[in-house]
Amino acid sequence: MNRQVALFGAGRIGRIHAANLAALPGVQLRYVCDPVADSAASLAQQVGAQAATLDQAFEDPAIDVVAIASPTDTHSDLIGRAAAARKHIFCEKPVDLSVPRAVACAESVKAAGIACMIGFQRRFDPTFSDAKQRLARGDIGEAEVLVITSRDPGAPPAQYLKGSGGIFRDMLIHDFDVFRWILGDEAAWLSATGSCLVDPAIAEVGDIDTAAVTLRTRGGRLCQINASRRAAYGYDQRFEVLGSRGLLACGNHRPTEVMQMDAQGVHHDKPEHFFLQRYREAYRLEVAHFFECLQSGAPFRTSIDDGVAAQKLADAATESWRCGQAVAL
Amino acid sequence: MNRQVALFGAGRIGRIHAANLAALPGVQLRYVCDPVADSAASLAQQVGAQAATLDQAFEDPAIDVVAIASPTDTHSDLIGRAAAARKHIFCEKPVDLSVPRAVACAESVKAAGIACMIGFQRRFDPTFSDAKQRLARGDIGEAEVLVITSRDPGAPPAQYLKGSGGIFRDMLIHDFDVFRWILGDEAAWLSATGSCLVDPAIAEVGDIDTAAVTLRTRGGRLCQINASRRAAYGYDQRFEVLGSRGLLACGNHRPTEVMQMDAQGVHHDKPEHFFLQRYREAYRLEVAHFFECLQSGAPFRTSIDDGVAAQKLADAATESWRCGQAVAL
Amino acid sequence: MNRQVALFGAGRIGRIHAANLAALPGVQLRYVCDPVADSAASLAQQVGAQAATLDQAFEDPAIDVVAIASPTDTHSDLIGRAAAARKHIFCEKPVDLSVPRAVACAESVKAAGIACMIGFQRRFDPTFSDAKQRLARGDIGEAEVLVITSRDPGAPPAQYLKGSGGIFRDMLIHDFDVFRWILGDEAAWLSATGSCLVDPAIAEVGDIDTAAVTLRTRGGRLCQINASRRAAYGYDQRFEVLGSRGLLACGNHRPTEVMQMDAQGVHHDKPEHFFLQRYREAYRLEVAHFFECLQSGAPFRTSIDDGVAAQKLADAATESWRCGQAVAL
Amino acid sequence: MNRQVALFGAGRIGRIHAANLAALPGVQLRYVCDPVADSAASLAQQVGAQAATLDQAFEDPAIDVVAIASPTDTHSDLIGRAAAARKHIFCEKPVDLSVPRAVACAESVKAAGIACMIGFQRRFDPTFSDAKQRLARGDIGEAEVLVITSRDPGAPPAQYLKGSGGIFRDMLIHDFDVFRWILGDEAAWLSATGSCLVDPAIAEVGDIDTAAVTLRTRGGRLCQINASRRAAYGYDQRFEVLGSRGLLACGNHRPTEVMQMDAQGVHHDKPEHFFLQRYREAYRLEVAHFFECLQSGAPFRTSIDDGVAAQKLADAATESWRCGQAVAL
Repeated sequence: MNRQVALFGAGRIGRIHAANLAALPGVQLRYVCDPVADSAASLAQQVGAQAATLDQAFEDPAIDVVAIASPTDTHSDLIGRAAAARKHIFCEKPVDLSVPRAVACAESVKAAGIACMIGFQRRFDPTFSDAKQRLARGDIGEAEVLVITSRDPGAPPAQYLKGSGGIFRDMLIHDFDVFRWILGDEAAWLSATGSCLVDPAIAEVGDIDTAAVTLRTRGGRLCQINASRRAAYGYDQRFEVLGSRGLLACGNHRPTEVMQMDAQGVHHDKPEHFFLQRYREAYRLEVAHFFECLQSGAPFRTSIDDGVAAQKLADAATESWRCGQAVAL
Repeated sequence: MNRQVALFGAGRIGRIHAANLAALPGVQLRYVCDPVADSAASLAQQVGAQAATLDQAFEDPAIDVVAIASPTDTHSDLIGRAAAARKHIFCEKPVDLSVPRAVACAESVKAAGIACMIGFQRRFDPTFSDAKQRLARGDIGEAEVLVITSRDPGAPPAQYLKGSGGIFRDMLIHDFDVFRWILGDEAAWLSATGSCLVDPAIAEVGDIDTAAVTLRTRGGRLCQINASRRAAYGYDQRFEVLGSRGLLACGNHRPTEVMQMDAQGVHHDKPEHFFLQRYREAYRLEVAHFFECLQSGAPFRTSIDDGVAAQKLADAATESWRCGQAVAL
Repeated sequence: MNRQVALFGAGRIGRIHAANLAALPGVQLRYVCDPVADSAASLAQQVGAQAATLDQAFEDPAIDVVAIASPTDTHSDLIGRAAAARKHIFCEKPVDLSVPRAVACAESVKAAGIACMIGFQRRFDPTFSDAKQRLARGDIGEAEVLVITSRDPGAPPAQYLKGSGGIFRDMLIHDFDVFRWILGDEAAWLSATGSCLVDPAIAEVGDIDTAAVTLRTRGGRLCQINASRRAAYGYDQRFEVLGSRGLLACGNHRPTEVMQMDAQGVHHDKPEHFFLQRYREAYRLEVAHFFECLQSGAPFRTSIDDGVAAQKLADAATESWRCGQAVAL
Repeated sequence: MNRQVALFGAGRIGRIHAANLAALPGVQLRYVCDPVADSAASLAQQVGAQAATLDQAFEDPAIDVVAIASPTDTHSDLIGRAAAARKHIFCEKPVDLSVPRAVACAESVKAAGIACMIGFQRRFDPTFSDAKQRLARGDIGEAEVLVITSRDPGAPPAQYLKGSGGIFRDMLIHDFDVFRWILGDEAAWLSATGSCLVDPAIAEVGDIDTAAVTLRTRGGRLCQINASRRAAYGYDQRFEVLGSRGLLACGNHRPTEVMQMDAQGVHHDKPEHFFLQRYREAYRLEVAHFFECLQSGAPFRTSIDDGVAAQKLADAATESWRCGQAVAL
């Protein structure tokens, strides 16, 4: 395998992908593109690539893969250009905040006959994917109820949230993907509610910081998601599946296995602080999976259709929350 | 203290209360009443009481407390008779399956000036009540989100469920009480859904066996309850409260602290099998609390008004489930 | 069954046994004897017995069981008198601090043909006895290595320790019994060492507060015991058995299953504070076992020979510690 | 930093170091040397180095570091040659099975003025080193008792063990190093025993497979080590330190955080299978530490003197086991 890659975006998530791409055998990270020239140059140097413009990347026939880690509002354009240039795509979630535009992206990708994977990294987390395997193997019988807990260590500034599409599109998008992946079924009914309990400035930009969603699938399975922008104890990423013959519970990961006992109690580490720590291995594995599938022709674990489907659920949740009523799907 | 007690009901829950009453200093269990004479006689003998009719119990002026552990459909009559006879009441949940009748009970009790406690034993579970104390002390700041998991080890026969009032009134009534107690706030909005996944015969009697409820309180706090009639691994009774400064999670209790490690994995005991085991200590403590309050005049932790309030939530959930829409309260 | 019992000793452990005896069906606690008349009287009243002198108890032909919970230095005399009076004996550990006197007790008991059980309550702890059952069932194959951790929450006054026979006879006696019971094998080699790290006053009375013992059995099995008079986090009572096919680990018990997560970490309860809490259930079960065996004729789980055998190991450990060398048995 | 490195040994541990060296910024792995030419060539190719003879490596003046991961009996010669060639040394444990030869190595290294670090990777395990930091910070007061559990998933062939120096030198050498590191004190008294319980062929080559060691330090601290060549549930690597104000317990690491509950019980993953998995991060961190210290001039966390000191304890334990008596140090 010899894959030449251009990476778009040299921010936080771009740097993670750059390091993982650089370490993959058979993959050469050639270009790093970012409107902030210094960021592109410094990241490129670290990983033995070169800074380039988007045009250079798209016009270089040696490049056969683009990795999109740029801001959300650039995704659909870049997917369109990559489809036109017939380059395979690894794209960070979401496809686009607008479902119609996301659907158009999916269509252009299919028309171009290129491969496109969406970076729902949670499906590659060792704990989550082990649970999925057990479920698929029937270890707990048929899945019946899924409970997802999804909490960030702290809320971003309200100004950032203003352009995020709201909590359901920005944050729960991952949970909607987990719901579809774990239950292997599609939503038929959804009810969402929420409150602004963490930071009043979030209410001022029209968003909430604490949310609760319930979904019922076509097969009658139930899912409850509780999400918060703040967990004082760190990044809380868990889910539990009740099956007809048992339960699978995915716990948080922690930095060490030290237990301290003293006059105050018995103490363990807090969970890994945030997504960069918790999903470090998942980010590595998803990129490796992308190239394995490119090579073997096997389908991606997270296709662009999965990206569109999660987006639709985020839209439905937003609508349900706004009108205070359940939504049929 | 010298309290003379008549117990109504010699079934499963009646026998628990009998043993706890018999062991309480200052309390004398005098009568056991049950339409099945043999049950009454055999239980009475075990605890040093005598079998009696209801009339005997109500007419005996020495009796100042009645403990109602008879079938649900007898509760409101017995509460009425006790109020008329001016005897204090300890009554198993629920007050009555009909909210108007439950309200009438509450009124008659107040009019008679007698004390009446409803047996929501979970409020006396050592784990749950410790969490409540920490919350009240502010250990995790302000409560924001409550997630309740409530699963029975197995479903009762559909025939039993036919007269139960449905899963929300029969099973989630306890969870609605926990919701009110833990969040210390009243529901403003409720959405419920559910499925029949465990036993098709349950659908045939018009009920469901798997349910999901979301509540939002007046203060914007959120609560999600997931409940199932079946957990292959035993009685699953947990809740978690997210607060502004941390989390409190109440885990299951298990019979022993043995851990086995072998070629198959690392293994612990399943949770205590069912409510008789898990809440054994809670049943003991609630009855002790009842008499302490009688003596001191302090208010009960679970009043008849709490019983009525939980019943109203069960009604609202039933309605929400039936119409597929949220309900304002 | 109708057993009439006299209890000797109204101290801390005597009160526990009194409550458990009083609650046993078929058992009547008739007398409580204690040189401190007030203690005897107040305990007797609580449990519906009467205070009595030793002579009254021994001379009353209706009494067929004596329960010895008086100070250690009274045990051998009381066992002797009970044997002479042909009353069955439940005796707190140890039989006697002197092995020859303990042996003599065992002989007099056998000569008299009475039953005598020694109160090694740990064998009745639900966690420990479950581990023993699994071991006996072969769940982890053949036992090979036993590691015992045995720590008190705090050291008693050095003055008390002066008459205690030293840490090996006073504290590790229980661990020597666990060693024999769990491995089902006898010691062939023992090495003990220790230090005074907790309280210098303990060194001044010729004792140590921190000890480490290693035993090798006739069959080559190994056991390590680590013991301390002080654990800042409470009573630490654990053991682990490595077998040819796995491991069994017995953990501490804790008062509640509340987990708190906050900015400082993840916190659980400390272990139950001390033996009265941790072994509450064990004390109840051992007394019930005593009467069941009396009734059925089955052998006790902890015979007077077990008491003598543990005492011999305590002597050997004391000798090994003093001379700094291993001891063959 | 620009360090040119020659690696000796292309076996299991050599391959781990090669990958870690190749990924370190500022470090260039130039040569891989192994008597098995194919192994050297294939490993060299994987990491962008070249296969070379020892002579080539020692004679190349550009090489300033040698990493020794060859069989134990080559260590002292290679250390000698490196000292003569004035190249810094990273050497896998042990220095040498003979204490006098190990001492001679330490002297030649010091005489040559080169840096030499011994690969006791456990000191770099995130869990173990976090415990050490807490201890150093005084989080549990003064260390008093250390209990080490050290078990391999399965015994190697008895033929391999024949040349290993015996269980104390081959396996417990790591535990002796942990003992010195964690307690920060030197042994004054040691008693060892053991048995052959796993594989009779091990007894035939004069070794044991199950061992128990107790050490008392000059300061009176106690340490117990229990070790076995077989744990059916995987690699068991734990230790606990009791301090005057609490306990620190280092637990095993496990591949995922999935918990399964079913009719058989509650199940978690077994520990990481063996040292390559459990200490993967430790191997990475120790090599990074080596180069950081080279650069900064700070002392290594594990010096050649630590290697010699652990070897002396292994010798003492072997002697104690053989003679069945304690040894003063």
